[in-house]
Amino acid sequence: MQQYQHIRQAAYEANMQLPALGLVIFTFGNVSAADRGLGVFAIKPSGVPYAELSPEKMVIVDFDGKTVEGQLRPSSDTLTHAVLYKHWEDIGGIVHTHSTYATAWAQSQRDIPIYGTTHADHNTIDIPCAPPMHDDMIAGDYEYQTGFQIINTLAERGLSYKEIEMILVGNHAPFTWGATPAKAVYNSAVLESVAQMAYLTESINGNAPRLKDALIKKHFERKHGPNSYYGQ
Amino acid sequence: MQQYQHIRQAAYEANMQLPALGLVIFTFGNVSAADRGLGVFAIKPSGVPYAELSPEKMVIVDFDGKTVEGQLRPSSDTLTHAVLYKHWEDIGGIVHTHSTYATAWAQSQRDIPIYGTTHADHNTIDIPCAPPMHDDMIAGDYEYQTGFQIINTLAERGLSYKEIEMILVGNHAPFTWGATPAKAVYNSAVLESVAQMAYLTESINGNAPRLKDALIKKHFERKHGPNSYYGQ
Amino acid sequence: MQQYQHIRQAAYEANMQLPALGLVIFTFGNVSAADRGLGVFAIKPSGVPYAELSPEKMVIVDFDGKTVEGQLRPSSDTLTHAVLYKHWEDIGGIVHTHSTYATAWAQSQRDIPIYGTTHADHNTIDIPCAPPMHDDMIAGDYEYQTGFQIINTLAERGLSYKEIEMILVGNHAPFTWGATPAKAVYNSAVLESVAQMAYLTESINGNAPRLKDALIKKHFERKHGPNSYYGQ
Amino acid sequence: MQQYQHIRQAAYEANMQLPALGLVIFTFGNVSAADRGLGVFAIKPSGVPYAELSPEKMVIVDFDGKTVEGQLRPSSDTLTHAVLYKHWEDIGGIVHTHSTYATAWAQSQRDIPIYGTTHADHNTIDIPCAPPMHDDMIAGDYEYQTGFQIINTLAERGLSYKEIEMILVGNHAPFTWGATPAKAVYNSAVLESVAQMAYLTESINGNAPRLKDALIKKHFERKHGPNSYYGQ
Repeated sequence: MQQYQHIRQAAYEANMQLPALGLVIFTFGNVSAADRGLGVFAIKPSGVPYAELSPEKMVIVDFDGKTVEGQLRPSSDTLTHAVLYKHWEDIGGIVHTHSTYATAWAQSQRDIPIYGTTHADHNTIDIPCAPPMHDDMIAGDYEYQTGFQIINTLAERGLSYKEIEMILVGNHAPFTWGATPAKAVYNSAVLESVAQMAYLTESINGNAPRLKDALIKKHFERKHGPNSYYGQ
Repeated sequence: MQQYQHIRQAAYEANMQLPALGLVIFTFGNVSAADRGLGVFAIKPSGVPYAELSPEKMVIVDFDGKTVEGQLRPSSDTLTHAVLYKHWEDIGGIVHTHSTYATAWAQSQRDIPIYGTTHADHNTIDIPCAPPMHDDMIAGDYEYQTGFQIINTLAERGLSYKEIEMILVGNHAPFTWGATPAKAVYNSAVLESVAQMAYLTESINGNAPRLKDALIKKHFERKHGPNSYYGQ
Repeated sequence: MQQYQHIRQAAYEANMQLPALGLVIFTFGNVSAADRGLGVFAIKPSGVPYAELSPEKMVIVDFDGKTVEGQLRPSSDTLTHAVLYKHWEDIGGIVHTHSTYATAWAQSQRDIPIYGTTHADHNTIDIPCAPPMHDDMIAGDYEYQTGFQIINTLAERGLSYKEIEMILVGNHAPFTWGATPAKAVYNSAVLESVAQMAYLTESINGNAPRLKDALIKKHFERKHGPNSYYGQ
Repeated sequence: MQQYQHIRQAAYEANMQLPALGLVIFTFGNVSAADRGLGVFAIKPSGVPYAELSPEKMVIVDFDGKTVEGQLRPSSDTLTHAVLYKHWEDIGGIVHTHSTYATAWAQSQRDIPIYGTTHADHNTIDIPCAPPMHDDMIAGDYEYQTGFQIINTLAERGLSYKEIEMILVGNHAPFTWGATPAKAVYNSAVLESVAQMAYLTESINGNAPRLKDALIKKHFERKHGPNSYYGQ
């Protein structure tokens, strides 16, 4: 059990950030933390309220979705996490929430247009909304297929999971990821904020234009380009 | 008095959850907790602020609405609770609030369409809005008739109170119920969240489609079907 | 100074409720507490942040707006309060805020339609919006005239200040009143809640009907009629 | 280091107000505090979360944007601050946030119309939205040019930085300023509140009229004119 303590702790702390940031109520979300070397991740147990979580309650699962250690049943979304870890070798954390504004966009089945620099500080493109899955994918191994729906949507648009660390699953809700669980949680909060601003922007100006390319490029490169100068 | 202590305590705790969850201000809501064996329920006293409540102040009422024990007058909505307990033999708790988004839908006299999986995790159908009552029902025994309006609306739609644990009373506000008072409070918070997301969904996409049947079925069965795999 | 201590204390406590209820930021509001027998009221000093208030800083003013006691300058809205106390002999408290939703309705220069029972629990009519004042009233003794604008608007509509304890001043913001300062603060919070729900109701259903007369009558009389049965 | 302690402290305190007032999440904002005599300002270090700030971490920069003292890299928006301090000799503090409603208006590329007295208490005109910059300005010294975009927008409209202490930068977000950092933070919170109310006003009444001149004049002069009578 000692060997997994670091990811149990990381998953616990990241899960506790979700209610603190106003991104979940009750049990409507989950975070996982991976150890790529060990080939496993720690994830929230299914249906347990945040106030009752502890590092010890996190469940250890391998990248095929098999429970390796833990007394509790893992999150019902575990297979989605497993698929993404298995196919994307550089991510260390995944978050799923039903945060209000991001979920409303997912229910609207629309990409979130890039309307400003808050968006461009984090992504150079509209935040994609994956279409709802085909009925046979849903009826089959649903959570497993949700992982492939995410992977396929990025592929169809020619996007890498390194370029965009967030997606809406149509009619469902957002998933985000990152190098660490903390980064994935950060991405969930950014997404919620960008989703709210985009909604308000369209309400204030029904003809609001997308951000122009020069600003997209500039803001993204300030934070992420080879000559980035944001942060320490 | 000892024999009712468990439902006094349960009603007290559930009532205190309403302001904690942001579902009420001042005295705009009430929860009751039933003991089916004793044929009574404990309910919030009328017009007493949440900060002044205690288990001892809860009023014990039978399923005909007659006060059995208690110094204070019970909630003005007591007869609505009584009618529901009398007719629905498997419920143990009822909640009434004027929560913002659910009440706005009730005032709009519209069912809340099922737009996403947050909704489908809890209900397979649109959340019904009962039509405003006939004038003679209102002028008569209003709260008593409100109970029947709820029962009749479900009946007209061929719904059981086990299939759907929440309703909007047109022009008024929501009622929710469940096996326990805690579950009924949970349902009130879920309803408020779903109501807000549905409002935002229509604002973002005026032609947003309802959730398709395969997803409704899948998400509901994850949590509630015979092969459910959500939770512990 | 001792003779005014009770209204200083009441005004202080009521003023502190405004930020606690989310109705003001910074110094954007004020409450007064009257002693009808002494013919004076205690009111918040002008421009002093809520965190720096104390009962001793409240200013004592007579019903003509003349300062009777106090080191600080009274609220810039003091003359509006004075006019209302002078003309309405049964009120003991007045509140002015720039709360978000009520102010948005005032800026929209629209009455708030009665869409539901939350509204009817407190008022039987639409919440009136006084038209912006004539330019000469504004250029003259503005705050004094604001009081008359409120009085005249009720008079033109045939309303008593006992029937409706809240009003919007067009392009400006709400005023509320009541038998006590605590009741006037309560009315401000009710108004803000009703204003938000009415806004959402129209957004959800552009053709939402006003509440029908039978429900208006029933809900108001539950709380306020001779046969009221709400509260203790 | 002692000579800069007062502006380090002032900048620290003002920066900490931003999350307390709900104007920023994570690191999405920055405040600077100038000493006009010394010709320098203290500013938030880049990318450091608010919870980790201290007065000692503030970076001292001169009005050409050159770091004078400090171990950390200053905010990526430092050059915008420097340009404004260099050209506007009477300001002592500058704030940049991505607050929700003000940013939504900036993304909408619209001035915020003056709809009520909350607005007029602080400004006599619509809050200007600077157009997005030309591509060559963006590709060049972007933050430096952002300062000039702000200065030029005021100039083109014949406005002084003393008349209006806030602006939206199109597609980006707000900047505010004032005699002190505390006043600049106050202006950011006022802007956010006015931006939310204006959004709601247009939603409630698509034909809401601008505030009439007499009211603009009166409210502004109550607080700011030679005969102002607001405050102590």
